[in-house]
Amino acid sequence: MLKVYIIMASKYIDIKTVKFFMNNVQELEKILDKERFVDYNIESVDLYIESVKKFADRELFPYIKEMDEKPAHYEDGSIHVHQQVEKMMKEGGAMGLISAPFNYEDGGLQLPLLVHTAANYILDAANNHLPGYSGLTSGAAELIIEFASKELKEKYTPKMLTGDWGGTMCLTEPQAGSSLSDIVTKATPDANKAYKISGQKIFISGGDHQYAENIVHLLLARIDGAPAGTKGISLFVVPKKRLDDNGELVNNDVTTVADFEKMGQKGYCTTHLSFGDKDDCHGYLVGEENNGLNYMFLMMNGARIAVGRGASAIACAAYYASLEYANERPQGRKLSSDGTKNLKDKQSLIIEHPDVRRMLLLQKSMVEGSMNIIFKAAKYYDLQHNSNDEKEKSKYHTLLEMIIPVVKTYPSEAGIYSINNGLQVLGGYGFCSDFILQQYYRDIRISSIYEGTTGIQSQDLLGRKMMLNNGEGAKLLLDEIKKTIDEAIQDEDLKKWADSLSLQLDQTQKILFHLIPFAAKGDYERFLADASIFMEFFSLVIIGWSWLEIGVASKRSLILSGSSDDSSFYKSKLDTLEYFYAYELPKTKGLADILLHPSSITIKKENKVIS
Amino acid sequence: MLKVYIIMASKYIDIKTVKFFMNNVQELEKILDKERFVDYNIESVDLYIESVKKFADRELFPYIKEMDEKPAHYEDGSIHVHQQVEKMMKEGGAMGLISAPFNYEDGGLQLPLLVHTAANYILDAANNHLPGYSGLTSGAAELIIEFASKELKEKYTPKMLTGDWGGTMCLTEPQAGSSLSDIVTKATPDANKAYKISGQKIFISGGDHQYAENIVHLLLARIDGAPAGTKGISLFVVPKKRLDDNGELVNNDVTTVADFEKMGQKGYCTTHLSFGDKDDCHGYLVGEENNGLNYMFLMMNGARIAVGRGASAIACAAYYASLEYANERPQGRKLSSDGTKNLKDKQSLIIEHPDVRRMLLLQKSMVEGSMNIIFKAAKYYDLQHNSNDEKEKSKYHTLLEMIIPVVKTYPSEAGIYSINNGLQVLGGYGFCSDFILQQYYRDIRISSIYEGTTGIQSQDLLGRKMMLNNGEGAKLLLDEIKKTIDEAIQDEDLKKWADSLSLQLDQTQKILFHLIPFAAKGDYERFLADASIFMEFFSLVIIGWSWLEIGVASKRSLILSGSSDDSSFYKSKLDTLEYFYAYELPKTKGLADILLHPSSITIKKENKVIS
Repeated sequence: MLKVYIIMASKYIDIKTVKFFMNNVQELEKILDKERFVDYNIESVDLYIESVKKFADRELFPYIKEMDEKPAHYEDGSIHVHQQVEKMMKEGGAMGLISAPFNYEDGGLQLPLLVHTAANYILDAANNHLPGYSGLTSGAAELIIEFASKELKEKYTPKMLTGDWGGTMCLTEPQAGSSLSDIVTKATPDANKAYKISGQKIFISGGDHQYAENIVHLLLARIDGAPAGTKGISLFVVPKKRLDDNGELVNNDVTTVADFEKMGQKGYCTTHLSFGDKDDCHGYLVGEENNGLNYMFLMMNGARIAVGRGASAIACAAYYASLEYANERPQGRKLSSDGTKNLKDKQSLIIEHPDVRRMLLLQKSMVEGSMNIIFKAAKYYDLQHNSNDEKEKSKYHTLLEMIIPVVKTYPSEAGIYSINNGLQVLGGYGFCSDFILQQYYRDIRISSIYEGTTGIQSQDLLGRKMMLNNGEGAKLLLDEIKKTIDEAIQDEDLKKWADSLSLQLDQTQKILFHLIPFAAKGDYERFLADASIFMEFFSLVIIGWSWLEIGVASKRSLILSGSSDDSSFYKSKLDTLEYFYAYELPKTKGLADILLHPSSITIKKENKVIS
Repeated sequence: MLKVYIIMASKYIDIKTVKFFMNNVQELEKILDKERFVDYNIESVDLYIESVKKFADRELFPYIKEMDEKPAHYEDGSIHVHQQVEKMMKEGGAMGLISAPFNYEDGGLQLPLLVHTAANYILDAANNHLPGYSGLTSGAAELIIEFASKELKEKYTPKMLTGDWGGTMCLTEPQAGSSLSDIVTKATPDANKAYKISGQKIFISGGDHQYAENIVHLLLARIDGAPAGTKGISLFVVPKKRLDDNGELVNNDVTTVADFEKMGQKGYCTTHLSFGDKDDCHGYLVGEENNGLNYMFLMMNGARIAVGRGASAIACAAYYASLEYANERPQGRKLSSDGTKNLKDKQSLIIEHPDVRRMLLLQKSMVEGSMNIIFKAAKYYDLQHNSNDEKEKSKYHTLLEMIIPVVKTYPSEAGIYSINNGLQVLGGYGFCSDFILQQYYRDIRISSIYEGTTGIQSQDLLGRKMMLNNGEGAKLLLDEIKKTIDEAIQDEDLKKWADSLSLQLDQTQKILFHLIPFAAKGDYERFLADASIFMEFFSLVIIGWSWLEIGVASKRSLILSGSSDDSSFYKSKLDTLEYFYAYELPKTKGLADILLHPSSITIKKENKVIS
């Protein structure tokens, strides 16, 4: 077959942007000043990021297409994954990609979550099928280290942090779906402080594969006689192979039933596991009985940052693939002043057409606007966990809680739209398997389902977060946004955008004043019916804030920039800011209109049948 | 693997809705009154539609998943497609599914395009991988019958209309893409009124397969010495096998080079053809030299209706699949008046949750709103072609020209969004290959690329159609919309929506008054830079009109409805109208804001580098 244009994109991320957001916009130095990070400075973090990029260039990016074409699959009772899973786990493990945020004493590197997030953003952009394996292992180890006994920690976490063993989170069950109050997996007290586990778990990412000597599941189950609903759920360590009294690994009666075949992210296995088919599956309680969901949810912010990060990173790789095509593909001509094309002109590169530029700027504004807010979430986490002042700890915890639904959802939803536009840049080729865009289009689609769907995140945003501490959380966040506005308003170029964002904050308050009375009257169904529309609205406000913040830092850096390359880098950020305020932020108008003139049409009534 | 819920949806279309839109909203009877259709009445059309539905139930719908799993593929110089392609062509051909709109004398059924469109909508919804084969054959035959010599018509069309031979349109070339002025395929005059053809054509749908005895390509090429650009393009009949002087089929030097592997619609082959590798490819001129693009574009409205129809129909099938799931899947509980859930309540079906209802109504509003406007476009075609009054002919031709960019684009773009929501209704299962939603999500993605991308349609809408006859075209369309508004305003339930649509028309004029001066000043690049945003805006206005029209007909039918089933059918249409006006139409506000406060950020300037 005739291959006229290059098929594989060569760039998937811009490291200069990653560093600019991490170092300048989010001011990593202020975090590195904290005692915990005394061994690091900007230069050593820089070296770390560069080594991660090299690892991603060598071991992740070259295999992205192959992992789609040769998916993880179930055969003879076990799951077979691509060989690079071993590289990710073992070599990545050795580089600290699992253990980076942990304490030295637990085998970690004691790096800020901001740095770990930037590093994983690079990995996700290079190949989104791989970092889930290390990420879930890290999350499972964190739960054990944080809440389980010293014995469990010493037995199970060291090999997880090296990548020899995998880790998972086992929440979903077939009959319960997102509704965790309905889970039925049983835990029956047994001798030796253990419990017998029996039940089915589905959609377990990284649940089994040939490169893990063992897999440690962190599983939610109901101890016999526990209260109904979420108050009766406990958390257990349930290894695929348990350590017996002699320290030998023995089979723990965890059966791999199937691997779900999916539309995308096919190299990242999604398993169905059965526990205790032979009544010999031991589980070890983490922390206290019936407190499992609380432990799980304390880790959830990290998981949600990771999902948003993955989505933004996939859209990032898609952006560079479409940009590369637009810079190389000649087609059509510029319109002359009579609206016609002059055939004697040579063909334009498609990047010269305004509609193509619009699609590229759309992508760039979504990708970078979300990358920065994801980094900010990680910074909030670091500031919360590394402050000695209780008030400050609480402040950053609240700020993280406030933005987390957007951090998870905006990259997932806008990312679909962004890649959709990237694919369109390629025209017919975008739909063809020879080009990578169609794969990213499929891969990203899981993000708005993982770790709480968009519907659930939206209910969390409007129903819980906006009401947090009687609105104190919302006030705290608005104050943070106002700080950026106050800074931007001093700059004559940024002032118009600062003013525009300020109006968006007024509009947000107006919407909340309109909706909250429904909750006050006890009509929660009505209050939350349009939560997803509110999410769409509020996400635009938050990303508008993200861009204004990028604008402030870009103007500051522009003054100091020494080379024309540098200044063109910062100007390009300001152009993208302009794009976002001209083409994306105005969409809040229609969304506000929907929210302020509500219809009750989506609320079920006797005579309303959807057919 | 545990399969808890049904995997395959059982309903892909609602025939009652198809008939209601065709018979009542678009008033088929008024078309059947025309002399050409003297042999038909509502009852006989009804029987025809029912027989098409049975054919689709039996031969199309059961194979939709299999055609995705076993794609068309290239092997040993030819392309192998699924066996149902033969059923579609031969059995479908015998049923008149290729020839329906043609004259009796040419082997047709002389059915209105409105009926043919409704019939094909059903086929597309049942299995979008198949109707392209018959549709392109029909289109190619139409070009020959309309513009070629009697000899070519008699030689080539009879076997096309029976489905024994296939037909294609060969426009795109590797180096030219959407820019037809750059095509280079050569036609060199030869003996016997024939031309020698040489060149490469890509993205040729239905270009080759084992079930066609012959394939008749309608190909654009440049005769030696022809003027540059679109004024030098001629149209040729280029069969895979030509009829020699003895009436025998002989090889015509058309080589199948490849089949493009795609993300979706995998059963519908997309080929790369090479003409004249051995200097023995004969082409037969259609009509006059250098007039090829005009002939091709006279058929383009039909092709664009077909693409919009296909997109809307895929979204239709996806809607019913997600509706079925929502009606069967229990999960979560209704919120009580203190915002909590009562665990003693049994689980709700997910269709009871407002956010799920919102996603279903969103789909229904997009699917049915677009189905009706597609039917309207077909009606305009019938009224144009069956009027004896030149003024009326011209009126309906203009109306069709005015709406065609929206008819092609809205179903394609909104269809993606609609299916995206359908997939989300299924949560994690939506992403799994066992469920059909993920396939529809992939299949529909080609629609906004086929037959002129969204960018090209948008330039056509704003740059040509809105300026047609100095704005007379736009005025004609606005007058038609006002007629519906005037009718609706009489009804107290519909009045608020009629008023709302009226404001949208004012807003449209305001936007045009704002943009047209750029064209007047010769700044066409600026004039058209936001054409895609205008398309998004104007599409919502047109679909708002479509829903108001459905509303008027529903109210009328509601009064006459005899059964409670009937009245619930019409009420459900009015609910969906309410949804569209509450949740979709308000989005025009943000889009108008973008259009009225333009930024020139998407127009290339020296110092604006996208990186």
